[in-house]
Amino acid sequence: MNVVIVGVGLIGGSVALELKESGFATTITGIETDSENAAQALKLGLVDRLGTLEESIPKADLVVISTPVNIIEEMISPILSLAGPQTTVSDFGSTKESITSHISKHPKREQYVPAHPMAGTENSGPQAAIKNLFRGKTAVICDRDQSGKQHLQAVEKVLKLLGMRCLYMNSKEHDRHVAFVSHLSHISSFILANTVLDIERDTATIFDLASGGFESTVRLGKSSPEMWAPIFEQNKKNVLEALEAYIRHLEKFRNSLSKENTSETRSILSQANGIRRVLDSINKGKT
Amino acid sequence: MNVVIVGVGLIGGSVALELKESGFATTITGIETDSENAAQALKLGLVDRLGTLEESIPKADLVVISTPVNIIEEMISPILSLAGPQTTVSDFGSTKESITSHISKHPKREQYVPAHPMAGTENSGPQAAIKNLFRGKTAVICDRDQSGKQHLQAVEKVLKLLGMRCLYMNSKEHDRHVAFVSHLSHISSFILANTVLDIERDTATIFDLASGGFESTVRLGKSSPEMWAPIFEQNKKNVLEALEAYIRHLEKFRNSLSKENTSETRSILSQANGIRRVLDSINKGKT
Repeated sequence: MNVVIVGVGLIGGSVALELKESGFATTITGIETDSENAAQALKLGLVDRLGTLEESIPKADLVVISTPVNIIEEMISPILSLAGPQTTVSDFGSTKESITSHISKHPKREQYVPAHPMAGTENSGPQAAIKNLFRGKTAVICDRDQSGKQHLQAVEKVLKLLGMRCLYMNSKEHDRHVAFVSHLSHISSFILANTVLDIERDTATIFDLASGGFESTVRLGKSSPEMWAPIFEQNKKNVLEALEAYIRHLEKFRNSLSKENTSETRSILSQANGIRRVLDSINKGKT
Repeated sequence: MNVVIVGVGLIGGSVALELKESGFATTITGIETDSENAAQALKLGLVDRLGTLEESIPKADLVVISTPVNIIEEMISPILSLAGPQTTVSDFGSTKESITSHISKHPKREQYVPAHPMAGTENSGPQAAIKNLFRGKTAVICDRDQSGKQHLQAVEKVLKLLGMRCLYMNSKEHDRHVAFVSHLSHISSFILANTVLDIERDTATIFDLASGGFESTVRLGKSSPEMWAPIFEQNKKNVLEALEAYIRHLEKFRNSLSKENTSETRSILSQANGIRRVLDSINKGKT
């Protein structure tokens, strides 16, 4: 398989590592506009060669686009236009509705499979690429009935090879669910980091006191703004709804605490414990 | 050393494990009002025997109170009154100002050392007790000048034996710092869990999609309401200030996203990346 990875960062680089090692890819071409990242990806052996869209896409068997979602939105149509008759094109972005709407009428629409492998770390760039990033995690494939059978199968094969479970939903459902389950988690972490940095200007104090659960909650606050700002912007409608709901819940808790309504305060915290059931099943799934 | 642990849960049980194994404690007496937890603590070998306040405290060398903070507040004065002339009394609660204010004029005040070992997990009860819970973490000792030298040294010895770094501040400073660095993290997790559980009533969807960073952010949402409600209530003034600041920061981000102010959105997320410096130093400290 002749594989082209557009955007060789954490996600693209980690995909490249696995496709190369498994023998799925015979050649991996990296397309990367950041020249430092491009050189790094080549040096780390994530890709066999660097290329351009015009020269690489037409003869590719599989193209995976793993740039920030604003770039995916810009590039998906031109890339699909360059695709050869057998080329499968997929994007691994965290939003789907806006991206798919850009090529809903594209003559090669059936060669495109929108996918979202739900995995990542708070690190970015080709040097952050790691093996087993995707193993045991979930990938969502959107709008499967609009992709041709052979293209759908090719992407499913890649996701399974990465060790992922495939889930199917439409782009609209996808964007709404991830707003609550993924995007809101990131916002709560980013903003928690800002709130604490703002008050505790002496970061030595944060360092000294951070052993009490702070680190896990705020870890996602290290994530790349270049990646996440476009995600929040493209999924604005759903993210704003999730954020409003979060603020409302926080205000309800604040009022309960402020009015010393002990039974309500406890009841709010007890409700949250419902998440234990979900997390326990996740961890059971891991073993 | 004759050690008495009042409240043998996650914290008290983990302290007991280490004091026993190191030989620091010759006998450990557990005082536990929950009969199931008491039986469990004895069965797990966390304590050598169960006792009552009246019988155990007067002849103890060291008393560690590790109940929820509302119970510490109720019990600190009667326990100190029961203390023998050489008994050192310490509490390991997460709030300090309210507790210490209850015994500021107690005739045995100098036998008391208010401490806060900043360690824990989202689990609770004697079966949650583990070894090395405290290792490498920070303990805060408050108002050190109000404790007698021998009592201060006894508590420092215990905290060092647990593997902790000791830090000193007054109760007021302590409560303000932990409101931002610890209590707010817990609230953001509890409320994030509620927000997501509220919208995603089908928990199977959360389970399926939770691989994208959700788990680490929401882990603290599993914490015990019996422990945390009294902490938030006792530290109400500071917690409300932290919560207000957090809501303001969230609203600023919401407005920026809503008005499509791309440069402000990115700048907010970039500021949050400042936390990387702090977290990286913590992890460097661990190795």
